[in-house]
Amino acid sequence: MNERNLSLLCDYYELTMSNGYFKKGMADRIAYFDVFFRTVPDGGGFAVAAGLEQVVDYINDLHFSDDDIDYLRSKGIFDEAFLEYLSDFHFTGDIYAVPEGTPVFPGEPILTVKAPVIEAQLIETYLLLAINHQSLVATKANRIVRAANGRAVLEFGSRRAQGADGAVIGARAAYIGGCKGTACTLTDKLYGVPASGTMAHSWVQMFDTEYEAFKTYCELYPQNATLLVDTYNTLKSGVPNAIRAFKEVLLPKGITNFGIRLDSGDISYLSKKARKMLDEAGLEQCKIVASNSLDEHLICDLMIQGAKIDVFGVGERLITSSSTPVFGGVYKLVAVENEDGEIIPKIKVSENVSKITNPHFKKVYRYYDNESKKAIADELCVYDETVNENEPRTIFDPNAVWKAKTLTDFTARELLVPIFKEGKCVYDLPNLDDIQSYCKEQIDLLWDEVKRFENPHTYYVDLSGKLWKIKQKLLNDIK
Amino acid sequence: MNERNLSLLCDYYELTMSNGYFKKGMADRIAYFDVFFRTVPDGGGFAVAAGLEQVVDYINDLHFSDDDIDYLRSKGIFDEAFLEYLSDFHFTGDIYAVPEGTPVFPGEPILTVKAPVIEAQLIETYLLLAINHQSLVATKANRIVRAANGRAVLEFGSRRAQGADGAVIGARAAYIGGCKGTACTLTDKLYGVPASGTMAHSWVQMFDTEYEAFKTYCELYPQNATLLVDTYNTLKSGVPNAIRAFKEVLLPKGITNFGIRLDSGDISYLSKKARKMLDEAGLEQCKIVASNSLDEHLICDLMIQGAKIDVFGVGERLITSSSTPVFGGVYKLVAVENEDGEIIPKIKVSENVSKITNPHFKKVYRYYDNESKKAIADELCVYDETVNENEPRTIFDPNAVWKAKTLTDFTARELLVPIFKEGKCVYDLPNLDDIQSYCKEQIDLLWDEVKRFENPHTYYVDLSGKLWKIKQKLLNDIK
Repeated sequence: MNERNLSLLCDYYELTMSNGYFKKGMADRIAYFDVFFRTVPDGGGFAVAAGLEQVVDYINDLHFSDDDIDYLRSKGIFDEAFLEYLSDFHFTGDIYAVPEGTPVFPGEPILTVKAPVIEAQLIETYLLLAINHQSLVATKANRIVRAANGRAVLEFGSRRAQGADGAVIGARAAYIGGCKGTACTLTDKLYGVPASGTMAHSWVQMFDTEYEAFKTYCELYPQNATLLVDTYNTLKSGVPNAIRAFKEVLLPKGITNFGIRLDSGDISYLSKKARKMLDEAGLEQCKIVASNSLDEHLICDLMIQGAKIDVFGVGERLITSSSTPVFGGVYKLVAVENEDGEIIPKIKVSENVSKITNPHFKKVYRYYDNESKKAIADELCVYDETVNENEPRTIFDPNAVWKAKTLTDFTARELLVPIFKEGKCVYDLPNLDDIQSYCKEQIDLLWDEVKRFENPHTYYVDLSGKLWKIKQKLLNDIK
Repeated sequence: MNERNLSLLCDYYELTMSNGYFKKGMADRIAYFDVFFRTVPDGGGFAVAAGLEQVVDYINDLHFSDDDIDYLRSKGIFDEAFLEYLSDFHFTGDIYAVPEGTPVFPGEPILTVKAPVIEAQLIETYLLLAINHQSLVATKANRIVRAANGRAVLEFGSRRAQGADGAVIGARAAYIGGCKGTACTLTDKLYGVPASGTMAHSWVQMFDTEYEAFKTYCELYPQNATLLVDTYNTLKSGVPNAIRAFKEVLLPKGITNFGIRLDSGDISYLSKKARKMLDEAGLEQCKIVASNSLDEHLICDLMIQGAKIDVFGVGERLITSSSTPVFGGVYKLVAVENEDGEIIPKIKVSENVSKITNPHFKKVYRYYDNESKKAIADELCVYDETVNENEPRTIFDPNAVWKAKTLTDFTARELLVPIFKEGKCVYDLPNLDDIQSYCKEQIDLLWDEVKRFENPHTYYVDLSGKLWKIKQKLLNDIK
């Protein structure tokens, strides 16, 4: 349980294909793969990219132990020479990715791998898993945080997460998306996400009376005591006992930094009633925390109803992104190098037009309008193209080429930055607070129309003229 | 990344409450907690309990390292004596649980902890997390396996799982629910779930022609070659090229154990067309594998349409249980011991009647009809009650006490078995194949009415007369 090597966390076919490439002398063929997604969870207008730190840790640690090799040998289908190759395996390729916290859109690469095909293939499953999971939770957390409109959101979902990583790293992603803290202690220890919590109903039940439970808690934790008031009866017992405990234990010490937590019943009604009771008792400073199966829609609705809530604790619907629990990132071959080192673009067709891939080794530019500062569009270009901000640039909708627009006063930013070069990590991983701030800044640069929950505007992800022509040619060639 | 101690994977409030119990001299108070759930995922008639092995591993490994203690000290709110106590912490209590693979129902304990309150509290989060996650995936997998009605189901979802454990241990749960194998190599290595796989589109794209890709694969893996036929055009190119490769490479060697995989398009239509093409080519033995966003409902629908599919590969909708991605197990205090060692039942009330807990330290009996062999009902009894199979037993609906039934020719089985006694594991963990077989056997003992997907019959979970009276008294006392 205490040791783990995730190198075998790969789909079995990655290994059988790699063994095949090895035996066929294709081990050194350079391949290019893109990670991208096709649909934003919850019908949103953008997603938040995350999981890069997990990818870096994984690539740095990638190796097959003797034990792994013995296990693979026992399957009876792998070549001894391939197993020997694996025993000395490490990643030697290049990886480019968007920084964690970047708002991203369907169809654009958020990570690109250039590596010998076996290496590129063996890392597929974990790369997708890490990026899919972290981006899923970061995206959901950001929706919930935006719904709370400045009020703090805390992540409370460990017990309902899908496995230990779901809880621990999930809470990390929630922080990237804008949560202020987590209930998960291990996430605080490992990632510095502030852990906090109140009390369980069992605390109240362990004492002879609710008042005694509250009084004891206030004595123990005079700073920041938050009392759970719904064990017996919120308004008849919980709130009055909390008021008494605050007045008897904390106010005499001059402490006013306390709160109550509502965890059941009609949160809107109870919060308004509780607020009134607290205010009438002179406890205007007392905060109200609410935490009962919340998500962005319920929070918006509570706001509309004028609920008196200062802090939202959000559990299962955040940590599992329960309304859309899958982030559908895929990993597709976009180019290979021939013997002369020439990059040959590859395409994957489909009867479903939206599933046709964007071929080639690419750059992604994001254009910001210099006047409004807002992001206008992203453009996928061929790797050897360069955008000159001092020249007007005409971009067009790849699915409706007559819809064109010429940018003049703009700033162009390359989204994909080098992470690994020839197997070496060349990227300084930012700390989590910086990722959170960067995420917020970048989302502030999106138009409100892209950010609304209902029918958001579709942000433009265009292809350069050069890339568009290459794609058309490949499609025609296959036809 | 390679070391992990999950002891701090607990909600922060477990630690603050424990520190409180410690300081107030309540550390040795014995508490009883039940794990139970209130609703079956996907509106089903039963769930499959799983996760006990993870609980056992966790409890056996439970300890706070110096590093953990230093971290906790840095929070500035924990007593030095409490930290000292934690540095020597291990579990000394008793745990009872239903064996993994047992079909279970809302409202009944699937695990019970009896321990000093601090110990019982500190393990809450991980116990819930392990049981919720494993039971969620085992329950979903079992639905999908039952829909496939004898055809094999393979778990293919690692890349869309919620974190590494979601993938690795999720595939273990899928096997308990009846899947025949997984794509996740690490789950094979760690748990012996057979790993298998076919090929990715990238394999086909790496060769100059689809036929060359297929031929090469058949040469490499003559046993059990499954060719992915939808990279370019399933019926015009994929299936004809597969037929050619089978005929040229495998049939001459007398090998007929091969297949094709459909991964996009109209699976029902394509499978029927492909089956016809394969049969007309004399390849009646060729299996058809389908794998495109499947779940139990789509599989039922494919069956109704007469789709020609032999094996289902199921990904994201299984590994995340996407239609109900949360298993809502809770952990509630049900009793405490007083100074004299007397067990005092505790109840948690709620304005929502279904959320009121069943108090006390309990046994769970499952009654089987001796004639049909089928499970008739479960009954929650007080810990000191014993059921005599040789005497008629009258059970009744706790919410409608006039609805009673007298059992005569029945077998009674206690569901909760001892797992830990005074901190020592006293349970032999069964191997995964035995758990899978046991799960299937036990589900076969449920009536079809409980197993159907639409409006399943509500299985009876009753309270003994003694327990029912205790519950009523506690409710009246609170009122």
